[in-house]
Amino acid sequence: MFEITVDDIKSWKKCVDAILNLVKEGSFEFDNEGIKLKAMDPSQIAMVLFSMNKNAFSKYEIDAKTKVGINIENFSKILSRARAGDKMVMRMDGGRFNVSFIGNNSRREFRIPTIDVPSGPAKELKINYSAIVKMKGGTLKEMLHDAMIVGPHVLLAADVDSFKVEASSDMGDVSSEYKRGSDSEINLDVNRTTSAIFSQEYLNDIILGCDNEEEIILNLGAPTPEDPRPKPLCVKYNIGAGEFCYYLAPRIESD
Amino acid sequence: MFEITVDDIKSWKKCVDAILNLVKEGSFEFDNEGIKLKAMDPSQIAMVLFSMNKNAFSKYEIDAKTKVGINIENFSKILSRARAGDKMVMRMDGGRFNVSFIGNNSRREFRIPTIDVPSGPAKELKINYSAIVKMKGGTLKEMLHDAMIVGPHVLLAADVDSFKVEASSDMGDVSSEYKRGSDSEINLDVNRTTSAIFSQEYLNDIILGCDNEEEIILNLGAPTPEDPRPKPLCVKYNIGAGEFCYYLAPRIESD
Amino acid sequence: MFEITVDDIKSWKKCVDAILNLVKEGSFEFDNEGIKLKAMDPSQIAMVLFSMNKNAFSKYEIDAKTKVGINIENFSKILSRARAGDKMVMRMDGGRFNVSFIGNNSRREFRIPTIDVPSGPAKELKINYSAIVKMKGGTLKEMLHDAMIVGPHVLLAADVDSFKVEASSDMGDVSSEYKRGSDSEINLDVNRTTSAIFSQEYLNDIILGCDNEEEIILNLGAPTPEDPRPKPLCVKYNIGAGEFCYYLAPRIESD
Repeated sequence: MFEITVDDIKSWKKCVDAILNLVKEGSFEFDNEGIKLKAMDPSQIAMVLFSMNKNAFSKYEIDAKTKVGINIENFSKILSRARAGDKMVMRMDGGRFNVSFIGNNSRREFRIPTIDVPSGPAKELKINYSAIVKMKGGTLKEMLHDAMIVGPHVLLAADVDSFKVEASSDMGDVSSEYKRGSDSEINLDVNRTTSAIFSQEYLNDIILGCDNEEEIILNLGAPTPEDPRPKPLCVKYNIGAGEFCYYLAPRIESD
Repeated sequence: MFEITVDDIKSWKKCVDAILNLVKEGSFEFDNEGIKLKAMDPSQIAMVLFSMNKNAFSKYEIDAKTKVGINIENFSKILSRARAGDKMVMRMDGGRFNVSFIGNNSRREFRIPTIDVPSGPAKELKINYSAIVKMKGGTLKEMLHDAMIVGPHVLLAADVDSFKVEASSDMGDVSSEYKRGSDSEINLDVNRTTSAIFSQEYLNDIILGCDNEEEIILNLGAPTPEDPRPKPLCVKYNIGAGEFCYYLAPRIESD
Repeated sequence: MFEITVDDIKSWKKCVDAILNLVKEGSFEFDNEGIKLKAMDPSQIAMVLFSMNKNAFSKYEIDAKTKVGINIENFSKILSRARAGDKMVMRMDGGRFNVSFIGNNSRREFRIPTIDVPSGPAKELKINYSAIVKMKGGTLKEMLHDAMIVGPHVLLAADVDSFKVEASSDMGDVSSEYKRGSDSEINLDVNRTTSAIFSQEYLNDIILGCDNEEEIILNLGAPTPEDPRPKPLCVKYNIGAGEFCYYLAPRIESD
């Protein structure tokens, strides 16, 4: 049983949509700290970790840790029905998940059936990243749009001086590069030259939720003598008080 | 034979489009009072009655009552070709229906073939309504959008204190309610608590033509001991000088 | 080998798109005078002649006449990736066609494979035109939109006093006419009353690239005793420094 008042409905909807970009169903975990969700996309290539602290909500009452598996698409549709000035309340009550919008003379109730959603992987990934690249969400989106002209896969490559997105196919070759510099759009923290190939489709889905003006952080890991396998990409950004961390498996050349 | 000058082309097009939302073909009746149309949708679930008084037209000359059956979709496309400043004339001449747009140096003529359209039902429905609900077109559209999230049917329910739209399906339950009140969005005139279920698709088509800021009137009828059958819904609104009255058959539970 | 700096990227992209409206592949010819392209649409009903003088480019260096056959659709997509403030360079280098966009800290390279494109017809058409009609691109587009309501073919007809677009089908008849006049939208230079029928689809593709406010010139040729065949239409307009001349074969009645 819980009752939560959502004040920043717009950001909350953007968070739900950023989850929806990767998975159609998911299990939200409500506990004393706040709301969390961990989900893997059906083909197990990408994973999303989401959390929002309870301080982001003006009312957050919960009597026990509760898992609520729901259809995220329907949840997003309901959130799109919010009107300016409405008060929004989420409740779990008698095994049903309720969303209410309360206006001056109006009261709207949406009840969503809960569903069984398999839990995501239990433990977090521990990766030593060799290159961290920060830029605005819009900058990365534009680089990927450049690469999209020729193909479904992109190479992300960082060295001490530059960050590059490259793609190649029958349609041609694309290279989109930013240099380090005092007024540069990118910020680099690179120990070793690092590169890996990823699915452009997944990468687009992952970064779609990041506002163009918000910071996005790419963490790339180079193979090491101890672990010569290519490393997953970790992408981090915030939406309002919501914190996102996505993992994306690299494309193995034989794919 | 008739010749009619349409001054408010925009409203006239909106009226034709509101008819088109329900039927693709129709028979306009031109007589000494003005223009009328009565048409039933092909599945006989809904009916539209339209009329516009001849005073709405700066020139309205007619020598005998004339029926003009036409493809409403083509008529609407022609009306969309009007340009600001054009004079628009509708003529029936030698068995052909003509629409002219006359500008400064330009003259455009559109002729539409007339077609046989079966007449609508002869007599009007006589129903004793037990609940009349008035609100803005936009308010009703929003309530139906809420319900659209879960399903194809909606329950409209009015009592002395409130008006509700409800829907229910595997996808969940929705209830969207307005209370009576001094600053309420709804105006209620209810003799008896009244409710019935209707097709959301038809209801959307019917109210689509009503401007968001214009008044829309719902007339709901409760079954009576003398006539225990569920009653059709009657929806009324105006578009400029055009008067609309739609009837929609209730959904029978066994559907 | 050549290296060309494109300053007015926007106009250059509009030119490439106007070519693309007719053909998906084409062979650009780069020589000492500038850039040319001649291409016939696959069904051989229409032809486009394009040219842009080298003076339109701030840098235009070429060591020998070079033909570059490419996929025009991909070329257009690449041009859409230009950003405000970027410097754009086109290069032919080691058999590969390169487009670079160079910004402050960024460098983006797109390489397109060259393809074999059959040369267009060798010699230009020599036609004596009997009617020349000038108007704004937007005016002609609107006239064709009128005609589009009823059918796939249009009659273009010019006499000393007027220019008309007509269409006729089961859906009805349309006539859209402009008269000569001091403040008229059209300018007429007509030796003999001239008319011919053309495919509306091709005509729309041909005039699509012309800005609404730019002048478009229609050249119509009447059959003569020496040559009784219907004559192709010639359509001319400019996009920035780019000059376009399209030819469109008339529709033969037995089609």
